[in-house]
Amino acid sequence: MAIVLGPNRYGKAEVRVVRVTRDGGTHRIRDLNVGVFLSGDMDDVHLTGDNSAVLPTDTQKNTVFAFAKKYGIGEPEEFGLLLARHFVDSQPAVHHARVRLEEYAWDRITGPHSFVRGGTEVRTALVHSDGSGGSGGSESVVSGLRDLTVLNSTGSEFHGFAQDGFTTLEPTDDRVLATAVTARWRHRGTGSDWDASYAAARAALLDAFATTHSLSLQQTLYAMGRRVLEERPELCEVRMSMPNKHHFLVDLAPFGMDNDNEVYFAADRPYGLIEGTVLTDDAPDAPSAWQ
Amino acid sequence: MAIVLGPNRYGKAEVRVVRVTRDGGTHRIRDLNVGVFLSGDMDDVHLTGDNSAVLPTDTQKNTVFAFAKKYGIGEPEEFGLLLARHFVDSQPAVHHARVRLEEYAWDRITGPHSFVRGGTEVRTALVHSDGSGGSGGSESVVSGLRDLTVLNSTGSEFHGFAQDGFTTLEPTDDRVLATAVTARWRHRGTGSDWDASYAAARAALLDAFATTHSLSLQQTLYAMGRRVLEERPELCEVRMSMPNKHHFLVDLAPFGMDNDNEVYFAADRPYGLIEGTVLTDDAPDAPSAWQ
Amino acid sequence: MAIVLGPNRYGKAEVRVVRVTRDGGTHRIRDLNVGVFLSGDMDDVHLTGDNSAVLPTDTQKNTVFAFAKKYGIGEPEEFGLLLARHFVDSQPAVHHARVRLEEYAWDRITGPHSFVRGGTEVRTALVHSDGSGGSGGSESVVSGLRDLTVLNSTGSEFHGFAQDGFTTLEPTDDRVLATAVTARWRHRGTGSDWDASYAAARAALLDAFATTHSLSLQQTLYAMGRRVLEERPELCEVRMSMPNKHHFLVDLAPFGMDNDNEVYFAADRPYGLIEGTVLTDDAPDAPSAWQ
Amino acid sequence: MAIVLGPNRYGKAEVRVVRVTRDGGTHRIRDLNVGVFLSGDMDDVHLTGDNSAVLPTDTQKNTVFAFAKKYGIGEPEEFGLLLARHFVDSQPAVHHARVRLEEYAWDRITGPHSFVRGGTEVRTALVHSDGSGGSGGSESVVSGLRDLTVLNSTGSEFHGFAQDGFTTLEPTDDRVLATAVTARWRHRGTGSDWDASYAAARAALLDAFATTHSLSLQQTLYAMGRRVLEERPELCEVRMSMPNKHHFLVDLAPFGMDNDNEVYFAADRPYGLIEGTVLTDDAPDAPSAWQ
Repeated sequence: MAIVLGPNRYGKAEVRVVRVTRDGGTHRIRDLNVGVFLSGDMDDVHLTGDNSAVLPTDTQKNTVFAFAKKYGIGEPEEFGLLLARHFVDSQPAVHHARVRLEEYAWDRITGPHSFVRGGTEVRTALVHSDGSGGSGGSESVVSGLRDLTVLNSTGSEFHGFAQDGFTTLEPTDDRVLATAVTARWRHRGTGSDWDASYAAARAALLDAFATTHSLSLQQTLYAMGRRVLEERPELCEVRMSMPNKHHFLVDLAPFGMDNDNEVYFAADRPYGLIEGTVLTDDAPDAPSAWQ
Repeated sequence: MAIVLGPNRYGKAEVRVVRVTRDGGTHRIRDLNVGVFLSGDMDDVHLTGDNSAVLPTDTQKNTVFAFAKKYGIGEPEEFGLLLARHFVDSQPAVHHARVRLEEYAWDRITGPHSFVRGGTEVRTALVHSDGSGGSGGSESVVSGLRDLTVLNSTGSEFHGFAQDGFTTLEPTDDRVLATAVTARWRHRGTGSDWDASYAAARAALLDAFATTHSLSLQQTLYAMGRRVLEERPELCEVRMSMPNKHHFLVDLAPFGMDNDNEVYFAADRPYGLIEGTVLTDDAPDAPSAWQ
Repeated sequence: MAIVLGPNRYGKAEVRVVRVTRDGGTHRIRDLNVGVFLSGDMDDVHLTGDNSAVLPTDTQKNTVFAFAKKYGIGEPEEFGLLLARHFVDSQPAVHHARVRLEEYAWDRITGPHSFVRGGTEVRTALVHSDGSGGSGGSESVVSGLRDLTVLNSTGSEFHGFAQDGFTTLEPTDDRVLATAVTARWRHRGTGSDWDASYAAARAALLDAFATTHSLSLQQTLYAMGRRVLEERPELCEVRMSMPNKHHFLVDLAPFGMDNDNEVYFAADRPYGLIEGTVLTDDAPDAPSAWQ
Repeated sequence: MAIVLGPNRYGKAEVRVVRVTRDGGTHRIRDLNVGVFLSGDMDDVHLTGDNSAVLPTDTQKNTVFAFAKKYGIGEPEEFGLLLARHFVDSQPAVHHARVRLEEYAWDRITGPHSFVRGGTEVRTALVHSDGSGGSGGSESVVSGLRDLTVLNSTGSEFHGFAQDGFTTLEPTDDRVLATAVTARWRHRGTGSDWDASYAAARAALLDAFATTHSLSLQQTLYAMGRRVLEERPELCEVRMSMPNKHHFLVDLAPFGMDNDNEVYFAADRPYGLIEGTVLTDDAPDAPSAWQ
């Protein structure tokens, strides 16, 4: 029995870069959090401390800033692809690059150069590349969002569930349904209109949440993922993680009051957690695209 | 020399209550985080464990929910006043109540009962009361917000500052100015139109931030507070805490690039912190209103 | 009615400095988070943006690092006093300095230079100074800690409390009592043996928590503060904030089980919050020492 | 092209249970955070909202509490196995259970029933089961820890690395090396002496960190994983994620001072991130054990 090195990667996490672009006196900004992670021929550094294959994480950080200058920052997916290809193409020992991006939204206040952080959700992207010369399957782009918090104050039921000796939950035909959506969707290729695709996918998620009469959070999750795929042919798979942010109806009977779905206690922990995948039956296999 | 009990208070923190109101089939929701803190004749419980003056914090929590049913939840300041007066009026040992509220904003999606969390800032209120029979000065209301994150991508300078042997900062006549505003404002009375006042104060802060050409963050802070007071006669004092969320211009010269205020690194720690008060010269003295 | 500037201060928050000291081959480290806040003749910067009185917060940060080199970092209170006096003594416009410190504990692993973060609590200090030439009352030191999480699994009761129409809590003569202690204590002077004083105060808090049979958390809080003052004559006042980290006995009756104080649910929100002061009757008045 | 349901699971996250055991008058406590996640024949609930296969997450929570009473809580891995097997064995539609556990350490203060939270790290466990009747490969246990923060103040170098046009980092032969270890290790079977194994693996990680002269964080990571496997034959694979918590030597030259590895700035973001696997060459394949 021998002890050996298994899969590994290294990189720079959470490079916070803000790019200002001037269109005459009018400014635009894009605000990203970028992580770069590289893998390849890295046995020596682990086994002997020989760093000759290791491009420093400090260099990776510098590259993020330099590319922000050189290419600007447009859509995060595109910026991620530029970075990922660069590292694989330019470093012989690097065979694979993974770039993780978050984008924070800013709305305009008044005037040409003033902004206020907008929305509560964060746009995300995850890019994998084996290099710009790679053939089919060697690159993947997953877009998404997190912390999109939504609530339906009615139109949600939960009954007919399995029961055992530890079941005390009462069935209900009218409850509050609330969740903080984390959703990610995989593109078929690397040439989507990223900003338009993101806006449409986000809108599809919101609309499906609002218009689905829910018998369970699982049903709602599936409806949301399905809607995204129905509307966006450039996508082939959606993965979602949705905590059930329980809103418990408060028992006001001890105070001589009824509570006709009016007063809720918003609980923190524990919480239900529903996770699921919706995909097209022709989606190419790409499990590593999500990691 | 004797050891004695000094100022004290107790209560229930972070009661998360969501109130649904139905107007026909159309729902409205208000979502609060409420803390109640009581003080008065509480020597015995500290010195001997005699709880006869102690209304349980569990009861305070129940009261928040019961009042949400009985009175509804309209403006947070008004809900806080109802609660504060109740505890002082009904509990002989309680001479003072302090109610701290946060409100989370929800925007409509589509349909009559679907919502998405909106904005990044949280609305706040702090209410003090010695009871509904109290005379002048016995009640106070401070409204406010936190986490209103704003950025000017130009129109900000910083130079002409004091220097000593530890000064290395270069003066600049064009920098990014960004901050996460925590602001609170004191009302002259307890009868303001709370929602309208809040919306106007928030708008004044944003507009003053955007339209003030800044020579220092202190100057911007003062301009923001001043604008609120100029526009809102029901207010007499504004207190602000504004971290300088440094955006450092990245040095790209090692890569043969200039950086004409295009690429910034958004830093976390350390950060400048500017705190200040703006008030009218006829503001009644009420330091305890802020605690 | 005029609008005027009120109290204000500015500075650099969260300067994270680690100081290594070598005693032969054996290393010692101290790990601080330092905030410096200055006030004085700062009207001009607020009203007109004239920065001539403003020592940059960047310079304050530099000074923290330079002082760590020049004087070493011993006890945080002493380091805070050095910094506070420096700014007031050297800057004509600065009349008052406030230094806030946190210290993170490290324990040795094996060997002379390897450490593991120890304890869950953070040591704190708050230093105010009007300068080294100041007369009586012009300096103050408050030491303390936060996040000292403790639990008694029995020896705690709660009954005999006030009741009203919203009370549903059952009295108990055996409950779990748990809290995360934030405590701060004021020194009479500026010459305490800071490390010894801290260790003894922390031990007194823990011992009083463990050995007090509790009829209420208020009683426990008072006993803890009293014990600190009884044992440490260099201290004159203790302020504590102690959340009641509720551990609710789970109702297992629906499953045919009793629960003889064996299985608890550790709840997050809402929580009781007890805040109180214990002081000696000869403590000099110094409310601003705590701010 | 059709849209179909892919992999999914659901459960209750973050059930906070504290179990008190009395040995005469002496109490012992174990404090867990438990998450249960189930998967199996769950198509109907997603596609039509038919809940007949869905054991409510509320029931899962109840089961955690009831099992804490019935079986006590000893080692977290054992408690997780009991829970996982129960759900698969008793629910026809559930074919697989995953239980995630965190344990918080408590040290004794004085007396038989008083405790203080100890350590900064959290012990973790991840259990998968296809049921107690399952044959080989149907169960897996991964133990671990997170937030074990360690620092070497010397004995770390970094030089000889790859360079490109974006490299500005200076090589060093003496730096501070600090990280917050997240490590997980897979057991060969389900019958380890869990507490003893955990204590030994944690000690091995600490000792290897302290005694490895480091040429790179990758080398240190590999040495730590290797040491665990060398010492613990019941384990076959270790996965680690170690952020490089950069401590930058402060440039004090502008103030006329040298800095002979004495004063460091502890930075937050960005940070290096090293992730790697060490395993025995006879480790059975079980990628799903880690998910």
